[in-house]
Amino acid sequence: MERSRRIGSLQGRVVIVGFGSIAQGLMPLLHEALAVAPDQVKVVSSSPDRTGVAQALGIDLLVCPLTQANHAAVLRPLLAPGDFLLNLAVDVCSLDLVRLCLDCGAFYLDADNQPWPGRYENPELSASQRSNYALREEMLAFGRAHPNGPTACITQGANPGLVNSLLKHALLAMAADLGVSCEPPASPRDWAALAQRLQIKVIHVAERDTQTTPQRRQRGEFVNTWSVDAFVDEGLQPAELGWGTHERHWPADAQRHGYGCDAAILLDRPGMGTRVRSWTPQEGAYQGFLITHAESISMADFLTLRDGARVLYRPTVHYAYHPCDDAVASIHELAGRHWRLQPQRRILRDEITEGGDELGVLLMGHPRGVYWHGSRLSIAQARALLPYNNATSMQVAAGILAAMVWALRHPRSGVVEPDAIDYRLVLEVARPYLGEVVGVWGDWTPLKERGALFPEPRDDADPWQFVNFRVT
Amino acid sequence: MERSRRIGSLQGRVVIVGFGSIAQGLMPLLHEALAVAPDQVKVVSSSPDRTGVAQALGIDLLVCPLTQANHAAVLRPLLAPGDFLLNLAVDVCSLDLVRLCLDCGAFYLDADNQPWPGRYENPELSASQRSNYALREEMLAFGRAHPNGPTACITQGANPGLVNSLLKHALLAMAADLGVSCEPPASPRDWAALAQRLQIKVIHVAERDTQTTPQRRQRGEFVNTWSVDAFVDEGLQPAELGWGTHERHWPADAQRHGYGCDAAILLDRPGMGTRVRSWTPQEGAYQGFLITHAESISMADFLTLRDGARVLYRPTVHYAYHPCDDAVASIHELAGRHWRLQPQRRILRDEITEGGDELGVLLMGHPRGVYWHGSRLSIAQARALLPYNNATSMQVAAGILAAMVWALRHPRSGVVEPDAIDYRLVLEVARPYLGEVVGVWGDWTPLKERGALFPEPRDDADPWQFVNFRVT
Ligand SMILES: NC(=O)c1ccc[n+]([C@@H]2O[C@H](COP(=O)([O-])OP(=O)(O)OC[C@H]3O[C@@H](n4cnc5c(N)ncnc54)[C@H](O)[C@@H]3O)[C@@H](O)[C@H]2O)c1
Ligand SMILES: NC(=O)c1ccc[n+]([C@@H]2O[C@H](COP(=O)([O-])OP(=O)(O)OC[C@H]3O[C@@H](n4cnc5c(N)ncnc54)[C@H](O)[C@@H]3O)[C@@H](O)[C@H]2O)c1
Repeated sequence: MERSRRIGSLQGRVVIVGFGSIAQGLMPLLHEALAVAPDQVKVVSSSPDRTGVAQALGIDLLVCPLTQANHAAVLRPLLAPGDFLLNLAVDVCSLDLVRLCLDCGAFYLDADNQPWPGRYENPELSASQRSNYALREEMLAFGRAHPNGPTACITQGANPGLVNSLLKHALLAMAADLGVSCEPPASPRDWAALAQRLQIKVIHVAERDTQTTPQRRQRGEFVNTWSVDAFVDEGLQPAELGWGTHERHWPADAQRHGYGCDAAILLDRPGMGTRVRSWTPQEGAYQGFLITHAESISMADFLTLRDGARVLYRPTVHYAYHPCDDAVASIHELAGRHWRLQPQRRILRDEITEGGDELGVLLMGHPRGVYWHGSRLSIAQARALLPYNNATSMQVAAGILAAMVWALRHPRSGVVEPDAIDYRLVLEVARPYLGEVVGVWGDWTPLKERGALFPEPRDDADPWQFVNFRVT
Repeated sequence: MERSRRIGSLQGRVVIVGFGSIAQGLMPLLHEALAVAPDQVKVVSSSPDRTGVAQALGIDLLVCPLTQANHAAVLRPLLAPGDFLLNLAVDVCSLDLVRLCLDCGAFYLDADNQPWPGRYENPELSASQRSNYALREEMLAFGRAHPNGPTACITQGANPGLVNSLLKHALLAMAADLGVSCEPPASPRDWAALAQRLQIKVIHVAERDTQTTPQRRQRGEFVNTWSVDAFVDEGLQPAELGWGTHERHWPADAQRHGYGCDAAILLDRPGMGTRVRSWTPQEGAYQGFLITHAESISMADFLTLRDGARVLYRPTVHYAYHPCDDAVASIHELAGRHWRLQPQRRILRDEITEGGDELGVLLMGHPRGVYWHGSRLSIAQARALLPYNNATSMQVAAGILAAMVWALRHPRSGVVEPDAIDYRLVLEVARPYLGEVVGVWGDWTPLKERGALFPEPRDDADPWQFVNFRVT
């Protein structure tokens, strides 16, 4: 088994910031796919490894909370040209680490794009300043200023990350199913034109996590299948979505940013308090949370078709996240606490007894129906593959591994978003870790089987208007 | 033990419609408190007793779904003057059974006030016609037309029921704590005047059910600690609340009924989709569901102070229900299904491993703080008392038993709401089954520790405005 998933071997050092659910889950993938040995790895984390995983793997872990003041002094001695810095922490500024890697000639990968602490929760800042849109614009500006720096993959995990590649595969699969002939798209413009031809009006990252454990959530406890801290951080940012050209109803609480790519808007409310209707093949119709995510902005930007300055076409893009049931209950309690995080946190992994993660893109607008394409990975499948993972962390780790492989082959690409990475390579590398990868047509719309007992804001003339997805 | 809770002995027959969680839980209370023997009891239910409780108790159960067409024919032969008909079913019209009992000279008690099937889910009917307000007005009109009929207690369980009595006790306890001297109130007017003197602006029935089991909810399953069917019925009625005289912000989705007592309004949306902020001493701040309940209307009506036709004072009254965590998850899934009830239903009882029910009234507006008065009954306490119960059903059964005792002593009172029953007798009879009964002051307000990151509709000048409780 292991040998069959070997891709190559990574020569330099791998420095990892943070050693939480994702970093731990990634270790066995790096080992089997890139022959990364324990003594190549150096972890810097704010807390000691209470799980014992670092010790079990023989990995050196330096306990040192990184700050704006100390990060360069701590990390610079660890990084030589060709080394890889992975930011898998929360609360460690991505842009500052990219800057450092440019200096050191080191590769960089980040499963997120985060600021130092204090920004998300600062009421002095506007909603726009607390948004992912703002963080992305800052990062892209830096990237434009340093176009040939060592490759720095940002927001590269499962979603964002893998799903950006799944989207491209899905567009081609739809085209094939529909008999729409097309040249392999070679530029963002080609992809946008394809999406337009396929009449895609709305794209959801539609995820249903069903992992569960008999160990019930306690009161005052936030339970999730990956970082509680990072989830609550993004959940309390404003809800953000790529805003499509077909939209006819401007939401009362929406704001444009007034600068930058203009592909996305924000709703001036927390994503964890914002529900939307969506669909996955296994779950059926569900309500998820419109949590801001980098891919909502970058995919909408990527699929924007322009004529000069005029925008001709763009789909609406957002996340519709149904986290595991315990996380839904945690969010309910958190809302009741006026969003002050619970004192206890728990990330489910070894105690999970059933469920899995159904994660994909849902493409909507074509008359034939909606098309969902994604990964269904059960906890049992994940465990059969490799240790230290649940289904969620393995999907994320697969996306990270895939982008690392791409980066090693494209070493001077500067700052890259997942949309700029070769989706075929990503899907090929990630494939063994994703369980079933399926594309499924469905006849769902957000108006299907809607009840008639109560009035709701809706637009019956076009099911694909955001007003129809949004729960009020 | 048992002898100490003996109150008297009931002579007639007890005919029970429905044999679900409440009827089963009530059996041992009737036996120990009123010496009801198995052969005095006759159950008529739409389904056979799959739990085996009727058989274990030696109770005769007739399987016969009652309908508008057959109910009189089936029940009349079972009822003689002095017998007691308990309606503990769902989907069996309360008013029709009251009518029958008047005819037969039988006592009547109903834990609810329900129509035959088809009314709640009929989109041809207005929200007002589907409301509890309408059901109450119909019932009260019948009661006024038959003032000296055999006593028929409607909406008498825990809430509505017991809480209406807890409210009166709470008002007197507050007065005592605050050194407000008052004569024992003798009329609704006296009670309303007392509430006004205590500056009560808002009353919640504030309930947090923490009962839980390791048997996780499955997808497509609605789990609750009492009737799933009845809960979903009321949860999909419009949200209703008694509307206080201090309210300064008319909700955009609110409607008055335009007839009847005018003590309550409805929001044109389902209660299960309507969240409000509330507080209990053990849970602290939480979000509950504004499910319509008879007590929201009757207590607001009862505490209305008038000068002729002019309303001088009325508190806002509503339910703020935090059902057990599995029910919260069930509601989340149900919303995603556009409120089409899940195919599987489960009522937790014997599989519960921890938790309890914290159920009381929360009185708000006095400068000293909020006052919660209610019952805290753990599953362990309930089990130590009597079999066939969880904490929730025992609180309900206690309220039923208490009203039965009152009815037997006041046999010709016609239709009575819980507000018209001697609260001292109710609390005395129910007391042994309620675990800890406590009154607790708190400094909570719905604005306390509210975050400042996002704008929300609110009125900082008066924390007790409904707009501050409502989650948007
Ligand atoms: N793109 C995706 O699909 C995806 C999915 C999951 C997680 N993520 C991201 O991956 C990252 C890690 O997630 P996780 O679930 O492993 O998180 P986690 O909460 O399990 O672990 C976070 C780790 O960061 C460390 N840390 C926190 N502050 C630090 C500091 N100042 N200096 C050094 N270390 C610090 C903690 O000690 C911990 O080891 C997060 O940024 C998260 O947003 C992305
Ligand atoms: N006031 C309160 O505090 C309170 C609390 C809980 C329940 N309740 C009410 O008590 C009643 C019973 O609740 P439960 O939890 O026992 O319900 P349940 O769902 O457990 O049981 C309902 C019973 O009604 C029977 N039934 C349904 N339709 C029938 C018909 N047409 N003819 C005869 N029987 C029929 C079912 O077979 C079942 O035995 C409900 O009306 C509920 O609203 C009131």
